[in-house]
Amino acid sequence: MGHIRVDDGNDIQAIGAAIAAARADDRPSLIAVRTHIGYGAPTKHDSQKAHGSPLGPDEVRGAKLAYGWDPDRDFYVPDAALARFREAIPAGERLVAEWRESLARYRHDFPAEAAELDRRWSGRLGDGWSAGLKTYAPGDSQPTRKVSSEAINALAGPVPELFGGSADLSESNLTDIADGGLFEPGATGGRNIRFGVREHAMGAIANGIALYGGFIPYAATFLTFSDYMRGSIRLAALSRLGVIYVWTHDSVALGEDGPTHQPIEQVAALRAMPGLDVIRPGDPNEAAAAWVCAVERRDGPTALIMTRQKLPVLDGTAEKARSGVARGGYVLRDASGDATTPDLILIATGSELQLAFGAATALEREGIRSRVVSLPCWERFEAQEAGYRESVLPRAIQGRIAIEALSPFGWERYAGIDGVIVGVDHFGASAPGDEILRRFGFTVDRVAELGRRVVREGFSGRVETLERGPEAR
Amino acid sequence: MGHIRVDDGNDIQAIGAAIAAARADDRPSLIAVRTHIGYGAPTKHDSQKAHGSPLGPDEVRGAKLAYGWDPDRDFYVPDAALARFREAIPAGERLVAEWRESLARYRHDFPAEAAELDRRWSGRLGDGWSAGLKTYAPGDSQPTRKVSSEAINALAGPVPELFGGSADLSESNLTDIADGGLFEPGATGGRNIRFGVREHAMGAIANGIALYGGFIPYAATFLTFSDYMRGSIRLAALSRLGVIYVWTHDSVALGEDGPTHQPIEQVAALRAMPGLDVIRPGDPNEAAAAWVCAVERRDGPTALIMTRQKLPVLDGTAEKARSGVARGGYVLRDASGDATTPDLILIATGSELQLAFGAATALEREGIRSRVVSLPCWERFEAQEAGYRESVLPRAIQGRIAIEALSPFGWERYAGIDGVIVGVDHFGASAPGDEILRRFGFTVDRVAELGRRVVREGFSGRVETLERGPEAR
Repeated sequence: MGHIRVDDGNDIQAIGAAIAAARADDRPSLIAVRTHIGYGAPTKHDSQKAHGSPLGPDEVRGAKLAYGWDPDRDFYVPDAALARFREAIPAGERLVAEWRESLARYRHDFPAEAAELDRRWSGRLGDGWSAGLKTYAPGDSQPTRKVSSEAINALAGPVPELFGGSADLSESNLTDIADGGLFEPGATGGRNIRFGVREHAMGAIANGIALYGGFIPYAATFLTFSDYMRGSIRLAALSRLGVIYVWTHDSVALGEDGPTHQPIEQVAALRAMPGLDVIRPGDPNEAAAAWVCAVERRDGPTALIMTRQKLPVLDGTAEKARSGVARGGYVLRDASGDATTPDLILIATGSELQLAFGAATALEREGIRSRVVSLPCWERFEAQEAGYRESVLPRAIQGRIAIEALSPFGWERYAGIDGVIVGVDHFGASAPGDEILRRFGFTVDRVAELGRRVVREGFSGRVETLERGPEAR
Repeated sequence: MGHIRVDDGNDIQAIGAAIAAARADDRPSLIAVRTHIGYGAPTKHDSQKAHGSPLGPDEVRGAKLAYGWDPDRDFYVPDAALARFREAIPAGERLVAEWRESLARYRHDFPAEAAELDRRWSGRLGDGWSAGLKTYAPGDSQPTRKVSSEAINALAGPVPELFGGSADLSESNLTDIADGGLFEPGATGGRNIRFGVREHAMGAIANGIALYGGFIPYAATFLTFSDYMRGSIRLAALSRLGVIYVWTHDSVALGEDGPTHQPIEQVAALRAMPGLDVIRPGDPNEAAAAWVCAVERRDGPTALIMTRQKLPVLDGTAEKARSGVARGGYVLRDASGDATTPDLILIATGSELQLAFGAATALEREGIRSRVVSLPCWERFEAQEAGYRESVLPRAIQGRIAIEALSPFGWERYAGIDGVIVGVDHFGASAPGDEILRRFGFTVDRVAELGRRVVREGFSGRVETLERGPEAR
């Protein structure tokens, strides 16, 4: 990078020379200009008081006098400055005309390429863009990060604008485009960005790519480390940028890396952010569907929350996941008999959907008629019309258990004020993932037992994990 | 800072020399040592595969062979290494004996100072440490950041271990100890730290001070910028460090700085984090009480969420705030008649407590018997016994309105699954704070109108802000 220093922020010639030098350098340049805050204000010159509050009329008058201006003229722009700025109008018109002419020549000489350029700039996806995504059959099981990798590579061809990478975790996040090449100096068209261990900068770069247009950027790291990039995520949400985040290793089930790496509160913290879609798919078909939602959403960011560990393909997702994930929540499994009046609703996301499914199957054998609701994206579900939401979570059915191996914070919205929430309200533990899940109580048997208590004893209220890790309290 | 480079991580002499050089430098030193990951492993030497998963028996055998060790000996430590490590035992015993002797001399020669040292190391507070805190009378009004400043300065004398500063916002956070001096090279005992615009480093430094012991560190910035330091906040919570955060400018009411500076989701995101107490006091007396809670909590971090704008002193807080804030929530104002059976419970925190109070007063005049619950700290409230919680928020009273000019996320816990939550579920707007609050619907009149609808029409469900800013959707 080029470093250029300008010692006096009022030296217009020196600033012009610095800009010219930066433009002549093919590397990025940093121009550091030394200026005076509140320049010319009688008492606030060089004072932080010129930053935090308005100068006020006396200081403004004093500053104008210091500049040699009439202190009584408001909104005054010196003639020389005005003339200089007005030069920008014909210069800009000339540049626009040149660009349009160049584009017209391009359209004429390269009609197919120009059509593709127009498609990308418009944000429209190509016909059949998602046709290559796999459907997974019951009996199969895959980590959803692996499904995410398969989705990225299936989309890479028909969605050439897909472009991104990981914060030094591509071997774990599985975000590489297999034949995409590295985006690096001297390379042409490399599609895999090595962001380095700098999550916040990664998020900011993805925002810049999205703002530039013509690309669908994605940025990956461990879910826990999303904490380091909340500033840039927030700016994506505020600016309605279609950035895609791939956050893997999405619960204590990541195992031995322990509490520093195990997300607990991150998903709740992300759900609290306006404008961000957070999707935590519950099996391989939901994971593929989540990628469809993320690519389609061009007016706001989407977080894809993926597992390290394998998840089984659940019955019904091959048919229901594509539309169900797009709506944010859906009935994956109906209760037997009159499906509209289940005894119990089991609500889950991500790796815990299989527990809801397994517990419902066990309880049905005992005559407890159980519905399973998959709720992978709260934001999309909230955007559905009231009738649909009521059909999925009927108000009259208050026997509910919510299951998510993360902070229970916020789940009262669906479980109810005294609803049973099977979550983790403390930090994790260092042990193999399977063992942590079992010791914390994330088993089909425990969920089924809670279901029995809800239906037979009217049990309600939050439940604690069975055990806590030695690191946790 | 000193920079020292060691080119070969196996060159023990060079590493020893580097450590000696760093110790001889009175500045901090960075020793950069070039090493090989998976050193000696036949196929994983210099490969990231040596990081993400165990080496496995073949690679371990191969590495041992490469070192010239017996590949069949497990847990083998060479004799020379063992002898070297065992030298640390007598050396450590000698250092401990010297330290104890020195301390005994100190206790004999300076008994008062030694008693103070013991007090600070034990984490006990001095007698009457909080006696200097002010009580505020109805009629007065203060920004809670100003009350926080008064608390810091009232505590600075009797709590000399209080030590901290701000991330370049001390003029806004009002966190300076007036006669504390700057903590800087050459200064003795300076108590105001200028952390600079580096929130994450500030949090990490505060963690280090807390771990060292003998100090109560505090760290301040705007609430929105807490996003930049979640990594270090999380480590404080996980490590049970008594760090105090002072986060001011706590809602859209901060005004003209606009959506980038206006917190929306931050408080919910912080409440979701295990182990962190988040206190958002509702008037000057609650703000002083919040400081008491934060200083007393030596086994975990506390976030103090303070306003930029003035808050009136509410009737009853002079008497109730000290114990009420310590319990996390309390009945600030009882309904008329049989106080145990109010028609309506208005629940609020921070700057919205005055709206609950004002609406309750107005509704009582119309015969709607209204309780006001102040809920400044959810974590402390949840830690109370069930009987106390039930006495504050009786299960039978489902007519509830929660008011907080922040994300409504999580409020269903107290408002109920269909409870009325007056929050902000989109980003803010650039305008004077008073105007934003009015346009978003944070007025006594609107809260009172919602109260009428709840009691007279059985109205329930979340409500939206009246308007949104031009930046927001």
